[in-house]
Amino acid sequence: MIRKVAIIGLGLLGGSIGLAIREHAAGISTAGYDSDAGVRDAAKARGLVANVCETADEAVRAADLVILCVPVGAMEEAARSFADALPGGAIVSDVGSSKQSVGNALAAALPGRTIIPAHPVAGTEQSGPEAGFSSLFTNRWCILTPGADADPHAVEAVSAFWTKLGANVEIMDAEHHDLVLAVTSHIPHLIAFTIVGTASDLEEVTRSEVIKYSAGGFRDFTRIAASDPVMWRDVFLSNKSAVLEMLGRFSEDLTALQRAIRSGDGDTLHDLFSRTRAIRRQVIEEGQDDDRPDFGREDHS
Amino acid sequence: MIRKVAIIGLGLLGGSIGLAIREHAAGISTAGYDSDAGVRDAAKARGLVANVCETADEAVRAADLVILCVPVGAMEEAARSFADALPGGAIVSDVGSSKQSVGNALAAALPGRTIIPAHPVAGTEQSGPEAGFSSLFTNRWCILTPGADADPHAVEAVSAFWTKLGANVEIMDAEHHDLVLAVTSHIPHLIAFTIVGTASDLEEVTRSEVIKYSAGGFRDFTRIAASDPVMWRDVFLSNKSAVLEMLGRFSEDLTALQRAIRSGDGDTLHDLFSRTRAIRRQVIEEGQDDDRPDFGREDHS
Repeated sequence: MIRKVAIIGLGLLGGSIGLAIREHAAGISTAGYDSDAGVRDAAKARGLVANVCETADEAVRAADLVILCVPVGAMEEAARSFADALPGGAIVSDVGSSKQSVGNALAAALPGRTIIPAHPVAGTEQSGPEAGFSSLFTNRWCILTPGADADPHAVEAVSAFWTKLGANVEIMDAEHHDLVLAVTSHIPHLIAFTIVGTASDLEEVTRSEVIKYSAGGFRDFTRIAASDPVMWRDVFLSNKSAVLEMLGRFSEDLTALQRAIRSGDGDTLHDLFSRTRAIRRQVIEEGQDDDRPDFGREDHS
Repeated sequence: MIRKVAIIGLGLLGGSIGLAIREHAAGISTAGYDSDAGVRDAAKARGLVANVCETADEAVRAADLVILCVPVGAMEEAARSFADALPGGAIVSDVGSSKQSVGNALAAALPGRTIIPAHPVAGTEQSGPEAGFSSLFTNRWCILTPGADADPHAVEAVSAFWTKLGANVEIMDAEHHDLVLAVTSHIPHLIAFTIVGTASDLEEVTRSEVIKYSAGGFRDFTRIAASDPVMWRDVFLSNKSAVLEMLGRFSEDLTALQRAIRSGDGDTLHDLFSRTRAIRRQVIEEGQDDDRPDFGREDHS
């Protein structure tokens, strides 16, 4: 059903989609556009899409599916930029990490058009046209959040597309998506950004000490806190209410642990730490992470 | 100078020390003891030390260096258990993550003996006699916190020992150590335990959803939150004041970010996220982590 895909934004996600199509769906032709000329050059050099265009209008020409791969705060403007050139039957989708705001933005920019918002739950801390790779979506979940009145054929086409790229597809209400992702992605990132900031601002402990002794756990947080600043700024601002709600729960729980430490209540600590260990086992059993100790950093032979 | 090392506690750290000696310091003989008979059997099967003993007294016999590798809350009792059998000139050390409390505990258990507390900043989320490996300390820092009146020859001997095992040695005041590690290790673990607990207790989001969509960042926290519950309970209780101090700073910073999100202050978010990205680069430049995206989980070829 989908014969030509246009990718708007050729960073980690856009580039990975292009490479995954080339590897897993060779029958689909690809065109792409990025507003940054340097990114377009890099995309050409790596062959992220078959045709790197000089305008968004040119990229969406004859496309069956247009996928917006820009920060969520830039979705509306990007969609408006090619609105007039969008073919009649084309489906518009995206890869944004918050879905209510993106759904609204795309509906505003493209009234009356077929919009199927999507969120492949995959990524790394790197960004830009050099960062993508074809297996990014393999065995990862891609969540679609079509509106209640969405065309079922379009939902099916986008679903089949992501399945072909190696992902497992789930369909969900946008509001529920935003709550789930607030806890599994947005709050973890916010916490990581915060602790890395806190550690680098201390007077009693130098930044060089923080870096030197980061193998005690801190370095894992620096990886997450190295994620793209613009993308994450937009996520927090666009998923504000779910993020603030989940942050409130986290803060309550942290305060309870603080009290347990202050009062020397070892049982409360031990009970929680035993429960969290069990969650880790489930994550591995469900295939959402592998069990190499310490992320396989060391040679364990 | 050190010809025989006794290791008390044969889990991840104790086992790794035994294996590292075998690989990097073949001239040193090893004996070990663990209060758990099952651990002793596993230690024999893996050859973690040359001689797995049935009592701590037997293990410390003729030792030049005794290293306590038990949870910090168990240090004092473990040290008392072999106090009468400890050879006259032996140095006693440990691998505990908090150093003021351990220094006090060992001084109380072994009055008048030579005590050089140590903390190799290395580990994985796994524990037990099967978890150790010989390269755990390679290019990691080992912090010694000798008291002001410690014998310099003993400090030098312990320092040379850890250098031989592949570590870089730093000497530090115990109080400063506890502050540095609170921020680079203890608070990151506390935060990870908390968010994994928060996520698994929600009513609006099921535990199966949390696990399913954990690749958005949450899974990294589950790894850290899979660390040994007893070890970590003891760390938080024994380094209480530094942990509570650093937790206070973190909470303040988190509240400031919460306010920025609520008020839509994107610049504050973007500024912080750009700074934290720079810290990540320093961690990699200093050799405290490698730069494989996403911990090298995916095949990027």
